[in-house]
Amino acid sequence: MRDAAPAMRKITREDIECLAVGAWILGTGGGGSPYLGLLNMRRLYAEGHRVELMSPFDLDGEDRVAVVSNMGAPLVGQERLADSRNIARAVAMQEEYSSVKFRAVMSLEIGGGNGIQPLMAAAHLGLPVVDADLMGRAYPEAQMTSVAVGDLRPYPCALYDPRGLESIVTNVPSWKWMERVTRKICVEMGSIASTCKAPRTGREIKDWGIHFTVSKAIGIGRRVREAQRRHEDPIAAILGEAQGKQLFRGKVVDVARRATEGFLRGRCVIEGLDEHRGARLELAFQNEWVVAWRAEGEKRNPIAMSPDLICVLDTVSGNAFGTETIRYGMRVTVVALPAPPVFLTPKGLEHVGPRAFGYDLDFRSVFA
Amino acid sequence: MRDAAPAMRKITREDIECLAVGAWILGTGGGGSPYLGLLNMRRLYAEGHRVELMSPFDLDGEDRVAVVSNMGAPLVGQERLADSRNIARAVAMQEEYSSVKFRAVMSLEIGGGNGIQPLMAAAHLGLPVVDADLMGRAYPEAQMTSVAVGDLRPYPCALYDPRGLESIVTNVPSWKWMERVTRKICVEMGSIASTCKAPRTGREIKDWGIHFTVSKAIGIGRRVREAQRRHEDPIAAILGEAQGKQLFRGKVVDVARRATEGFLRGRCVIEGLDEHRGARLELAFQNEWVVAWRAEGEKRNPIAMSPDLICVLDTVSGNAFGTETIRYGMRVTVVALPAPPVFLTPKGLEHVGPRAFGYDLDFRSVFA
Repeated sequence: MRDAAPAMRKITREDIECLAVGAWILGTGGGGSPYLGLLNMRRLYAEGHRVELMSPFDLDGEDRVAVVSNMGAPLVGQERLADSRNIARAVAMQEEYSSVKFRAVMSLEIGGGNGIQPLMAAAHLGLPVVDADLMGRAYPEAQMTSVAVGDLRPYPCALYDPRGLESIVTNVPSWKWMERVTRKICVEMGSIASTCKAPRTGREIKDWGIHFTVSKAIGIGRRVREAQRRHEDPIAAILGEAQGKQLFRGKVVDVARRATEGFLRGRCVIEGLDEHRGARLELAFQNEWVVAWRAEGEKRNPIAMSPDLICVLDTVSGNAFGTETIRYGMRVTVVALPAPPVFLTPKGLEHVGPRAFGYDLDFRSVFA
Repeated sequence: MRDAAPAMRKITREDIECLAVGAWILGTGGGGSPYLGLLNMRRLYAEGHRVELMSPFDLDGEDRVAVVSNMGAPLVGQERLADSRNIARAVAMQEEYSSVKFRAVMSLEIGGGNGIQPLMAAAHLGLPVVDADLMGRAYPEAQMTSVAVGDLRPYPCALYDPRGLESIVTNVPSWKWMERVTRKICVEMGSIASTCKAPRTGREIKDWGIHFTVSKAIGIGRRVREAQRRHEDPIAAILGEAQGKQLFRGKVVDVARRATEGFLRGRCVIEGLDEHRGARLELAFQNEWVVAWRAEGEKRNPIAMSPDLICVLDTVSGNAFGTETIRYGMRVTVVALPAPPVFLTPKGLEHVGPRAFGYDLDFRSVFA
């Protein structure tokens, strides 16, 4: 029995606008543009739907939580318009297969459009959203979560495509195998799938969730929007709100991008402006920004890398650019934000450090 | 209620030896070598297991039947040794997911090792095998079955890999989509998966099954083994037993083979001997032999094509060669056997005619 009904906080329209801005920044280039999700939520709120936010600590240990995300290559998400019913259907599939009744919905990753996906599901299902996620940002692969670092059970995973393609990966020996099998299904669906990951208990979310990241994203978004309204520096507002560091400022001069194997991969080069004139910043991405190298003359050094959050922001507005929206000529400021501690452990770095992405670098934090 | 207990026929050890020979011939190059399945069955029988064969007409309309096959590229099946428990696990997965209790097991395709797969499942599960399949031979793709021609429901399909990879494709809008999604899962499993297809009712098997094909395969195998024992012509025995026609006789002079996208694809060239001297036969395959062209000087004409069964046989022993076992120097006789009538209709030819394999040819039967 519960001691008391959990305290629910109503998510306002303004919160959602802020969430879209803040989640896009925390997406570190990925998680997909939140714009289409935002349009869905505006419509759902206009129709009278309302969504509530609950603290992870108000979950009972035995409660079951649906962990949702839109999986695939962000570029494809620009073509395939978001429909809020898709993610709700993935949750329903999981509920049917696992014979559970979900207490709440939450984000796999707070970054980008995936920060909004649980709100879309929640609106249709009449469930609250847990104020937490499993990445504290966005990462491209299934084994790049706090619950994978914690070796919690990776299966079952439900995948849905609105043409009526439904699959459930019912057993795998490891998180990497979950990544491999679901990625192939996702690719066959067209490199975008609505997914509901393995159900998590309230106990697991209390122990392994990255807590209060929905509030964090809303908070960052609110500061940016305030700064925009007041004609203050939005970058400074972000750095203040999220304890970040500015890395570079300049103009995008080259983008090489390809949607491949269910990911968006590529490189982006930024030419320095102001105090960075004469230097270049090179960014490698796999859905998200993974490593940043600063080059000047003959020298080329990695200055930021996963799991630190690398965020590429519009220098004027402070809004984030995603790896699928960045293009030549954009004036950008690159900042780093600190990673959740779970990813800074040796086990955490095995899952999300630079070598997990194929870069033979020892992790050095911008914040060390 | 049943009027009477159905008549079951015990499958003897000798029946299984015959089935392995006959199914390999009906495999038309594919379905995988039956050898490893045969070894499994010898062992299971040595341990005391026994399997019974039942007529499709002894099924009740509401009975549920498990349709099984080993899916993938036959070449990989030569590396990954068959374990009879794998296919039994796929049936158990389907039973759990679909909440059905199966009355019996049957072959997706009577051809090759897949003619033996249901016996392996049946031995572990204590179920009879239905004397029928859904192809009357082997075909490479999911939509190439009588039940797909009949537009019966394609889902759900359970896929199992002994490393503990289990997936269920729970919904698809068409058989072709079932093929696409399951093929990608199969490829990720290493291009071999144990599968249990959508459960079929007794009514559906009576209406759409290809009936008595287990008995047919055993009968062909028995004739071949008798001919071998008596030093008679086994090819003549096959042609007599299965109403076939001889197409070509010669020596294999070239094989190009690649395991790709979950299939074994390639070409094989046979140089004519005896009355075919001076001519060549070219065979294209996708797991199974699909089209045979006879070439002589400047002329090159297709002389046999799917859905007619093209069988490449050892000229001396009458045993079949598979697309994964055929190699340079083999003395072969190529014969055609007639296709089940369901595949000769316009709808049937859409599913399994030469254009379904990418060959721009009008189907002309060897038997027309």
